[in-house]
Amino acid sequence: MPETVTAAMLIIGNEILSGRTKDKNIGFIAEELTAMGIRLSEVRVVRDDEAAIVEAVTTLSERYTYVFTSGGIGPTHDDITTACIAKAFGAEVERNTEAMRRLTAHYANSGVEFNEARRKMADIPVGAALIDNPVSAAPGFILKNVHVMAGVPRILQAMFEGLKPGLTGGAQMLSRTVACTVGEGTVAGGLGAIQDAFPEIEIGSYPYFRAGAFGTSLVLRGTDEAMLAAAAEKVRDLVRSLGGEPIEIVDGEEVAS
Amino acid sequence: MPETVTAAMLIIGNEILSGRTKDKNIGFIAEELTAMGIRLSEVRVVRDDEAAIVEAVTTLSERYTYVFTSGGIGPTHDDITTACIAKAFGAEVERNTEAMRRLTAHYANSGVEFNEARRKMADIPVGAALIDNPVSAAPGFILKNVHVMAGVPRILQAMFEGLKPGLTGGAQMLSRTVACTVGEGTVAGGLGAIQDAFPEIEIGSYPYFRAGAFGTSLVLRGTDEAMLAAAAEKVRDLVRSLGGEPIEIVDGEEVAS
Repeated sequence: MPETVTAAMLIIGNEILSGRTKDKNIGFIAEELTAMGIRLSEVRVVRDDEAAIVEAVTTLSERYTYVFTSGGIGPTHDDITTACIAKAFGAEVERNTEAMRRLTAHYANSGVEFNEARRKMADIPVGAALIDNPVSAAPGFILKNVHVMAGVPRILQAMFEGLKPGLTGGAQMLSRTVACTVGEGTVAGGLGAIQDAFPEIEIGSYPYFRAGAFGTSLVLRGTDEAMLAAAAEKVRDLVRSLGGEPIEIVDGEEVAS
Repeated sequence: MPETVTAAMLIIGNEILSGRTKDKNIGFIAEELTAMGIRLSEVRVVRDDEAAIVEAVTTLSERYTYVFTSGGIGPTHDDITTACIAKAFGAEVERNTEAMRRLTAHYANSGVEFNEARRKMADIPVGAALIDNPVSAAPGFILKNVHVMAGVPRILQAMFEGLKPGLTGGAQMLSRTVACTVGEGTVAGGLGAIQDAFPEIEIGSYPYFRAGAFGTSLVLRGTDEAMLAAAAEKVRDLVRSLGGEPIEIVDGEEVAS
């Protein structure tokens, strides 16, 4: 059986916890990792607070294959992520030569002064590898299994695109969704029995309200295609036995069922 | 000085971590708590996994004044939140009489069978207080300082509205935003000095791109209105000294500056 590759995400920033900024990064990272066969196992959001960041990154780095962080690598006093990640791993921070080269080139063409605050964005823990930032030059970095990215979604997404070729995915998680207008509580008993019969398939039940009608999406996930198909057939049979009309969606496409 | 009231949120559900469902509850709870003077200090998202849920709720319950959870209290096999919260506190789960009364009345008017799976939604830890669910009857509950709610945003929001009168807020956090078209790296040095001069005011800097122009929102938060006003004045002076035109926003309203 292929190894399970796991990940955690750590979102750093008071603005998410105050409600001022609505997070858009969890959904993006979750979708990307799922598509690569990497299981996002936990997300934490913490304040711009050294103790909180150090504790979270230490714990998550020990537990999961990969950690992805967002936020706190800009030029202002509240951007403390780099120092905290370095502290968590007992690393020194240095003014990185390559980061300085990129930032110098970026600001040379911008008419904006490359002052000391902006130079701070070239401070990178010793031993870290840089993550490209094609949007605003200031790089992220990789230290141990921790990938440190910007919080602005456009920049985080661009940074992650560059990271992808270097990440090792696990067994591809396949998914099938059986949607029906049968209530969640009506399918629950039979669904639990199917889950017991297919312990390697993860079956989730999600009620929805759409186009004026209540319904239930039954989502099956697993790495074995034949087993997934067999479990999905049982779910369709269950829905029909309860008087419902199952609609099966495979990889986003509705299929005859 | 008034006591700081803190909170954590625990989101339970594989569907958030797979990216299938995009979270809408963090932003809602964050805004509501901030408005009540309760500081949301941490958010965690965990899978439908007993060990993960028990560990997270135990840790967060010890650390913060309030914990709010979402997800996993429906009728299907993957809804394990109630059992996990009970386990975290060493409580038994019982079929709650008042919850049964509410669910019986709800389904009596619905034409939907009140079967064993749906009765499971009346299972509540011994000693817990019920949280009203005006949308679909199945209650949440409060055990110790943990408030267990549904994951569907419409239901979570209705449950939270009912909870609000029972929550004790802390000192109201006031906020002022000074927006300007001066770059974040340009204000950074002066802003750090203002932060040093006003340690009780939390100053955040957030770059934005709007209507074709880059700019920076400087957000000041604190409980002392006079101190906040004094710090905001220093920030406006800083922006002007850098050739910018500060636009001040107090409680969402733009004011003359």
